[in-house]
Amino acid sequence: MKIMIMGMDGYLGWALAMYMTGRGHEVCGVDNFSRRRNVKEVGSWSATPIKPMEQRLKAYEEVSGKILNFYEGDLTHYDFTELVIKKEKPETIVHLGEIPSAPFSMIDVEHCNYTMINNIVGTNNILFAIHKHIPDCHLLKLGTMGEYGTPNVDIPEGFFEIEYRGRKDMLPFPRQAGSWYHQTKVHDSHNIIFACKIWGLRSTDIMQGVVHGVVTEDMVNDDLLTRFDFDEAFGTALNRFCSQAIIGHELTPYGKGGQTRGYIALRDSMQCLAIAAENPPDEGEYRVFNQYDECYSVNELAEKVVKVTKKLGIEAKIWNIENPRVEAEEHYYNPEKENLPNLGFRPINTLEDELGITIPKLMRYKERIEAKKERIMPTIYWAK
Amino acid sequence: MKIMIMGMDGYLGWALAMYMTGRGHEVCGVDNFSRRRNVKEVGSWSATPIKPMEQRLKAYEEVSGKILNFYEGDLTHYDFTELVIKKEKPETIVHLGEIPSAPFSMIDVEHCNYTMINNIVGTNNILFAIHKHIPDCHLLKLGTMGEYGTPNVDIPEGFFEIEYRGRKDMLPFPRQAGSWYHQTKVHDSHNIIFACKIWGLRSTDIMQGVVHGVVTEDMVNDDLLTRFDFDEAFGTALNRFCSQAIIGHELTPYGKGGQTRGYIALRDSMQCLAIAAENPPDEGEYRVFNQYDECYSVNELAEKVVKVTKKLGIEAKIWNIENPRVEAEEHYYNPEKENLPNLGFRPINTLEDELGITIPKLMRYKERIEAKKERIMPTIYWAK
Repeated sequence: MKIMIMGMDGYLGWALAMYMTGRGHEVCGVDNFSRRRNVKEVGSWSATPIKPMEQRLKAYEEVSGKILNFYEGDLTHYDFTELVIKKEKPETIVHLGEIPSAPFSMIDVEHCNYTMINNIVGTNNILFAIHKHIPDCHLLKLGTMGEYGTPNVDIPEGFFEIEYRGRKDMLPFPRQAGSWYHQTKVHDSHNIIFACKIWGLRSTDIMQGVVHGVVTEDMVNDDLLTRFDFDEAFGTALNRFCSQAIIGHELTPYGKGGQTRGYIALRDSMQCLAIAAENPPDEGEYRVFNQYDECYSVNELAEKVVKVTKKLGIEAKIWNIENPRVEAEEHYYNPEKENLPNLGFRPINTLEDELGITIPKLMRYKERIEAKKERIMPTIYWAK
Repeated sequence: MKIMIMGMDGYLGWALAMYMTGRGHEVCGVDNFSRRRNVKEVGSWSATPIKPMEQRLKAYEEVSGKILNFYEGDLTHYDFTELVIKKEKPETIVHLGEIPSAPFSMIDVEHCNYTMINNIVGTNNILFAIHKHIPDCHLLKLGTMGEYGTPNVDIPEGFFEIEYRGRKDMLPFPRQAGSWYHQTKVHDSHNIIFACKIWGLRSTDIMQGVVHGVVTEDMVNDDLLTRFDFDEAFGTALNRFCSQAIIGHELTPYGKGGQTRGYIALRDSMQCLAIAAENPPDEGEYRVFNQYDECYSVNELAEKVVKVTKKLGIEAKIWNIENPRVEAEEHYYNPEKENLPNLGFRPINTLEDELGITIPKLMRYKERIEAKKERIMPTIYWAK
């Protein structure tokens, strides 16, 4: 299958390019390197010393014999998006090419609008170019479990049958996103549903949990590493806790730490995306996969990091700090996940297993974390 | 009360500026004149010969003795939006400053993205400027009944209590919009809910039905007319039917004509907006008003126009043409409307009453409709 990865230079994108190539697919990709620029703008860098794309591609060719076509460009420019899609005519587009940070989008009005326009217009451009040139293409789009928020009921996979005043309908499950970034994913979902309806496009909208880990089997040398962010904007809570433990800082859950989310290991995320790509939806079908493995509260994450680092001789402490976000710190959380297991998804690593691999790997880059350690603690406030 | 009207040059904006001034409020307004440009771009004009803003303001000052401060500028430029909000510090902002056309947004990718960016970024900028400078301001935002689509259940006012697998929550009613334009209103609603939550802003989101009519009591001379569009992009079905009847063309409902929507007369829309403005929500409250009076199918609209024009000596015929849109042509439709009546809204004119005023008024501008009659029939297709 010919697969085009939008955002191939990113955390998931680079890992997925190698993973899908390894499964025998022909992979090409697009990126405008905005992630590198945006992380630099907030004063940080990847803990893993990632290489420029040119070097990545060369290194991968050396170990695999495979050439990945790569295009540098901005998906918000329709002419560019149309050009690459028309030229490559992929059977599947995996769209990871969005700005993925809640805090980054919350910095100020410019960062809010930059994230909105980048994500919404980029996705719209892909939809229009698919409709015009490759209407049978499967758009595999990365959304987030965060679209749903934390409702006081179970979370179905995208749609649910409701009964209201004696009548029934199957409707999209209401979205209640918790940042401008998360809102862009909600907006994308609505736009994609509409494109599937009017144009008969086929799409899988991945409501993905928080991805953790930094290693896949393809990263056989340092030129092939994927990024690992640990700053307040682009680093997840778990990434920050791992980094804090390594440099001897307290682990700092926000608020009461009862915020519960779904988690999935990087290699399991690869497995899920491959399953979705290799089992495309029907013409006109819009389907939703809740893509996560385990649920943990932020406090539980911190405790896991304490437990794993203890075995490595580190005595980490937990320090619950003031929550910079506006969010429920204690809530019900029970999202359904049946679609991916029904297609054969079997998670390989628990969060604790994966931490046992991630943390020793990261310890090699302790100096790089130390150098940017002032960027871990929160400075971006939701309600300021 | 000091009221700022975003989109004061528009169909509703100009009528509302005079109406609110007449109720003793201090009114100022903003517009970038995009509506005039966009209607010109699709090759049409307003049936009513509307005057430039300068002339409107002067004429209104002459009849009322009141000066309305007006600012020409683009709400997507944050610096401009912040400047006018900071300068005027209104207690209420009525935000009508969006591109309001479904077909215009469906022309191509450029018009889709133009509508998305204009509406979403404009609203975001207003939210940020309110938060920064006038956090107590009431944002009265024009959404549309079209956000809900046509679900097979009753449509509540914004939120509904659901029971799902034995648990309950009060959640936003799912949105299923039918054009890129309608999607922008859905996106705005989600963004405003979020702003109210994190910043404690107060907002009324008006899910407005289709507004009809062209006359209010304030339009005492021709310099004070509001616009009346009849082209395929900016003219509503009812406006097109009125115009077709006047020039002796068949009335052309799309498809089977069973598409049912809520309708409200222009002067009743003014009444509702005044009620909402004069009864602001609490701090942090986001509330939704379904703002319409009567429901009609498109066929029923056409029949009403036939009935009213018959009395004026016109024998109009109905010709159901191929539907350029992708939409349900026969469906259940029962939206709730209790919030505005509970605050005192009492509709003045039925659709048929209002048609009896609108059509004779429009007959004065028959030549202007004739001159652009080739712009009435559909050329923009949803599924092309």
